[in-house]
Amino acid sequence: MTTRFVIVAGSTDTARIDGISAAGADPDLMAHTPSADLEIVEYGRPVNSPVVPVSPTGCPTPAVVTRAVGECCGFEPLALDAGLAEPTSAPTVEIGNGPGADIRESVAVESTDEIFETARTLARGLPDDELVIGETIPGGTTTALGVLTALGESARVSSSLPENPTALKSAVVEAGLAESDLAPGGAAGDPIEAVRLMGDPVLAGVAGLVVGATESDMTVLLAGGTQLVAAAALARHAGISDRLALATTPFVAADESVAIEDPSAALALDLAITDSGFDAFDHPATNAYVAGEAKEGVGMGGALALADRAGVPMTEIRETVVEVYDRLFADGPVERS
Amino acid sequence: MTTRFVIVAGSTDTARIDGISAAGADPDLMAHTPSADLEIVEYGRPVNSPVVPVSPTGCPTPAVVTRAVGECCGFEPLALDAGLAEPTSAPTVEIGNGPGADIRESVAVESTDEIFETARTLARGLPDDELVIGETIPGGTTTALGVLTALGESARVSSSLPENPTALKSAVVEAGLAESDLAPGGAAGDPIEAVRLMGDPVLAGVAGLVVGATESDMTVLLAGGTQLVAAAALARHAGISDRLALATTPFVAADESVAIEDPSAALALDLAITDSGFDAFDHPATNAYVAGEAKEGVGMGGALALADRAGVPMTEIRETVVEVYDRLFADGPVERS
Repeated sequence: MTTRFVIVAGSTDTARIDGISAAGADPDLMAHTPSADLEIVEYGRPVNSPVVPVSPTGCPTPAVVTRAVGECCGFEPLALDAGLAEPTSAPTVEIGNGPGADIRESVAVESTDEIFETARTLARGLPDDELVIGETIPGGTTTALGVLTALGESARVSSSLPENPTALKSAVVEAGLAESDLAPGGAAGDPIEAVRLMGDPVLAGVAGLVVGATESDMTVLLAGGTQLVAAAALARHAGISDRLALATTPFVAADESVAIEDPSAALALDLAITDSGFDAFDHPATNAYVAGEAKEGVGMGGALALADRAGVPMTEIRETVVEVYDRLFADGPVERS
Repeated sequence: MTTRFVIVAGSTDTARIDGISAAGADPDLMAHTPSADLEIVEYGRPVNSPVVPVSPTGCPTPAVVTRAVGECCGFEPLALDAGLAEPTSAPTVEIGNGPGADIRESVAVESTDEIFETARTLARGLPDDELVIGETIPGGTTTALGVLTALGESARVSSSLPENPTALKSAVVEAGLAESDLAPGGAAGDPIEAVRLMGDPVLAGVAGLVVGATESDMTVLLAGGTQLVAAAALARHAGISDRLALATTPFVAADESVAIEDPSAALALDLAITDSGFDAFDHPATNAYVAGEAKEGVGMGGALALADRAGVPMTEIRETVVEVYDRLFADGPVERS
């Protein structure tokens, strides 16, 4: 069986709302996060991106973990650019045309239909038996909340911040629904419209991949947390009844503001949680996860699931995470301009 | 030592001149050749490109050989889009902005400087010790002739056709020089101007990579025939005196219209010719090469050199070439539209 590890990357102006995301040290650097994440997964370090993404408190991007698993297991990453705000030196297939708007605008992703269909066609053409699909988009849990609400699904999402700013997210989604003239559940059965009004380009791409992959009888493993739950909801509302699995981290699973089992059950997702043993480990590369930061992203949960399936011991994964981290931060925090 | 296998892909309207190239069954399909080549190297088959590139007589693209070596040796391909005419579903780093013009126009590649600098910066950022650099661009030997002439270097180039249309190529280059108001050797010492007036986007990209790689003390292996000779000449005229190696196929080496040793010596290139043993083999995947078609492309010579270095027996390479070929042509000639 051949497996391909796909990472869909993009940007949404929703991330610029103050306090919404921890996927970057500050809003300007955050714009580079998904582009730098792809470079870290592909090359082990940023190539021309000016920053190694860290949260405001210094938690390193989950791309470090995904890269480490890739070094241990040798999986083939495939990066899709659904709408990056900044250029990346990682090789990508372009499936979109620029960042999504703030969901408080009337239209969030004008070209949703085009992104969805491009991703769907791409997935149908791939020679693999299984797609593992992850994402990197700052602000993505807020757009996920927007989409889940638009579809009328149980709407609770995780956060890259230790304290989930749920009230802020709800207010943003409410403002977006009002501006889009949409009631909660108003886009049920119409996933394209849900993303167009309340989503982001990455959700359009992931949903297209899931639909295309199931149409050509590939196995789908959604690699992530509540953003992938939103993508699964989009696929269900597109009429996909095939088996779908969700692989996430213990940090999402421990997030009581989500209770990941509930949406997984509601959407009939096979839930897999892979424990990387970070809690019994003490290193700056992993401690922030244990403290509840970042939690997921860049396919981290799916990567850990693949490592587990390949029989790679988690001690080896943790050691490689430290190696990747040390290479990235050998000269102190990286920030070029 | 880490090695990265880079393929620079692009298009030039020079390929549309009747009789100039065999890199496609007909001119319309030829436009898809570099895009499909990248998909074959990445995925083992075209994904959304409508064709498996073959010459007018059915010789399969050298991408088949490069893919086969990749399957045997596990090298990491990195594809750069220096200006493709048609979309590709292979992941690429974009370093250009569209195809080059027919060199009979006054300007061939308006954005040469930008492509060169983007490639140079990319190479400088890569974490590898060695770059192997190949190309895929139909019409590329004619633009190579244009560039070598503009630089004042010994100007003899190979061909994907069994009978090298040298008179036609010379006439095209003469017309291009006249329209560009340039004498032979008129761009000596000015590689950017040589490509801008008489080259193609791939040559701009390869030259930039070579300059950037040598600036950061990476080893450079040019993987190909006379197009890579032209790229080496550009690097020499940019003042690069570092050691450069050229790895090509016995089919280029046997091409008397080129005498590959001469330009290699003139440009101080370490020449490596790797015999894949196709001549003692009888299969539709390889026979056309023995008959003098295609000869090189998509990094074939460099891929064979890497296989040789890794100690992979050529019998295994040939068997894998047949496997890749059989997968591609299982349903007869592939042509979708």
